[in-house]
Amino acid sequence: MIPESWLAERTRHIELSGIRKVFELGKSLKNPVNLSIGQPHFPVPEPVREAAKAAIDAGHNGYTVTQGVAELRDRLAADAAARFPGQDRDVLVTSGTSGGLLLALMAVVNPGDEVVTPDPYFVAYPHMITLAGGRMVPVPGYPDFALDPDRIAAAITPRTKVILLSTPSNPTGVVATPEALKAVAELARERGVLLISDEIYRAFHYDGPARSPAEWDENVLVVEGFGKTYAMTGWRLGWAHGPTRLLAEMAKLQQFTYVCAPSMAQHAGVAALDYDVTELVADYRRKRDRLCEALRGRYELAVPGGAFYLFPKAPWGTGTEFVSEAIRNNLLVIPGGTFSGRDTHFRISYAATDETLDRGIEILNRLGERPA
Amino acid sequence: MIPESWLAERTRHIELSGIRKVFELGKSLKNPVNLSIGQPHFPVPEPVREAAKAAIDAGHNGYTVTQGVAELRDRLAADAAARFPGQDRDVLVTSGTSGGLLLALMAVVNPGDEVVTPDPYFVAYPHMITLAGGRMVPVPGYPDFALDPDRIAAAITPRTKVILLSTPSNPTGVVATPEALKAVAELARERGVLLISDEIYRAFHYDGPARSPAEWDENVLVVEGFGKTYAMTGWRLGWAHGPTRLLAEMAKLQQFTYVCAPSMAQHAGVAALDYDVTELVADYRRKRDRLCEALRGRYELAVPGGAFYLFPKAPWGTGTEFVSEAIRNNLLVIPGGTFSGRDTHFRISYAATDETLDRGIEILNRLGERPA
Repeated sequence: MIPESWLAERTRHIELSGIRKVFELGKSLKNPVNLSIGQPHFPVPEPVREAAKAAIDAGHNGYTVTQGVAELRDRLAADAAARFPGQDRDVLVTSGTSGGLLLALMAVVNPGDEVVTPDPYFVAYPHMITLAGGRMVPVPGYPDFALDPDRIAAAITPRTKVILLSTPSNPTGVVATPEALKAVAELARERGVLLISDEIYRAFHYDGPARSPAEWDENVLVVEGFGKTYAMTGWRLGWAHGPTRLLAEMAKLQQFTYVCAPSMAQHAGVAALDYDVTELVADYRRKRDRLCEALRGRYELAVPGGAFYLFPKAPWGTGTEFVSEAIRNNLLVIPGGTFSGRDTHFRISYAATDETLDRGIEILNRLGERPA
Repeated sequence: MIPESWLAERTRHIELSGIRKVFELGKSLKNPVNLSIGQPHFPVPEPVREAAKAAIDAGHNGYTVTQGVAELRDRLAADAAARFPGQDRDVLVTSGTSGGLLLALMAVVNPGDEVVTPDPYFVAYPHMITLAGGRMVPVPGYPDFALDPDRIAAAITPRTKVILLSTPSNPTGVVATPEALKAVAELARERGVLLISDEIYRAFHYDGPARSPAEWDENVLVVEGFGKTYAMTGWRLGWAHGPTRLLAEMAKLQQFTYVCAPSMAQHAGVAALDYDVTELVADYRRKRDRLCEALRGRYELAVPGGAFYLFPKAPWGTGTEFVSEAIRNNLLVIPGGTFSGRDTHFRISYAATDETLDRGIEILNRLGERPA
């Protein structure tokens, strides 16, 4: 047994994920309807798997340069240059999108600095901000979860160092409008704060092309990933692109911590960029429509334009109370308090087969009223 | 261009690795004799490669639980239980040994806390300590690099939170004696500080069995890796074992940062544990003897008992001056200042073919005297 005094103060501010708790509860269920999963339900596309295996056989198994193997980095740089022409924009291959985000926060946040982020937010944001020594300033996005530049502006103080956005959002699936993205990019520039745009769900836009706040300012840092798009979340591959000076600092930090993204995954990343996910995305769009259609009227919800989540209001009780009842009814979903200062909603993932989705809808339809 | 004020204070204390600088210099050489590499020169053993590929084909490509897949974790736990019977010792699979080390430091070091470590030290230690907000207190180990419990004891203050050791050491290759390890383990217990034992080179012991300070105290945290042992440094797979309470905090931090070690590498880790590296290690022992024999008399050096490094004193000039001359002569080695507060030595890696090693010896023999 170690004395509690050995543990750093920061560990007291980091709590086990509500997602893990649902997994633990779900373990007791025999054949649960699992709509809690934050990753695609399809397999890694074959050419991507083959490229990873070929890299292993070709002996690409040692450290890579921390910036990422040239084949992949060049492709990503070309992609960024095409999307954001004429910008000072460098690329760093990272250990997942989370890896890139942590490096960015460590590179800019001093102890006591504030990071403004819409609420609900990705489950790891508060903890990553804590690790960097910062303080999260959540900006409530209820009830429609639209990005509101005025609310963001009102949250900025002299201690604000970063605005952290995700579009499409996890957990709401809501996509920010180009007007709102432009306004927040301009706000960040005016107020001299770094805007970090988490675009891990960029491939999953259903109602129009993907937009980024970086279109309006070259100093916007963008973090992206391969895991969600190609169903390879376990391969830990992401990338960041943004101002050269910031990317250099992030690379330094990566060199001395996680060294490089997994070598075979980096080589597979090149094949992934060549793989067309249009049909996979169309399938998720269809699932979104199916789910929204089925719940409309029974649940209060903002129809999401991307990712693979729905974030309805619990029809009775708190998010936690409703989710506990759902689990008792064999359905795994995540209470909204996991992603928010409020515990009023819950997250449904539709990264599942149609059959599972239909079983889930059937249970949700039964759960609309509080059990007597 | 971003303003410099955007960068966190900690980035100013983290400098680009001296190893990188040598790589940059070496790029201009046509066919350099490269004795600078910190990873084995043999390929990943075939059964290990096959296991990674089989995991990919079997669809093990999503997130794993942050603690690691059960097959691997159970094996590692059994290994730890066999080495340290009766101890409270849990296991966490990490993204490389570096990943485990960073999690440990983040879990225990508060801003301003001190971490005592022998000098020379692994290149990333000072930077990881900086990231955790701590202050490194180096304890000089010159000239023989033996672990000296009295010097460690003298460096401990009320702010000391951690003693950080590596045995065998990178960059010296020196193995601590069981007596010294026992004394430091007892010192850590008496003074109430966490002892972290970095055993990434555990497989590479040439003159006796591997020993660990954890033999004398169950509260010692051990970090280990697969990368060096099986030549898979790019696969980012390591593990930590130690007190359950500490491991739980490290798992929490991993969950919210790098999530899990790469999935296919974890499955391959099980095959790696079944692979016998005796012959590979014997080959490195032979290389150590060859190199020490060839340099003896010309260079002042401590014969190392493990890893695959030699850390001789520069026969003239500073470590940097000597290494610059070596690079002019087509030989890549690393200046000692990369790993130390002193710039008097240089690191040779003998993870190379015999032919490369012989070419390196030939150049080193010529470099013994300062050029006119």
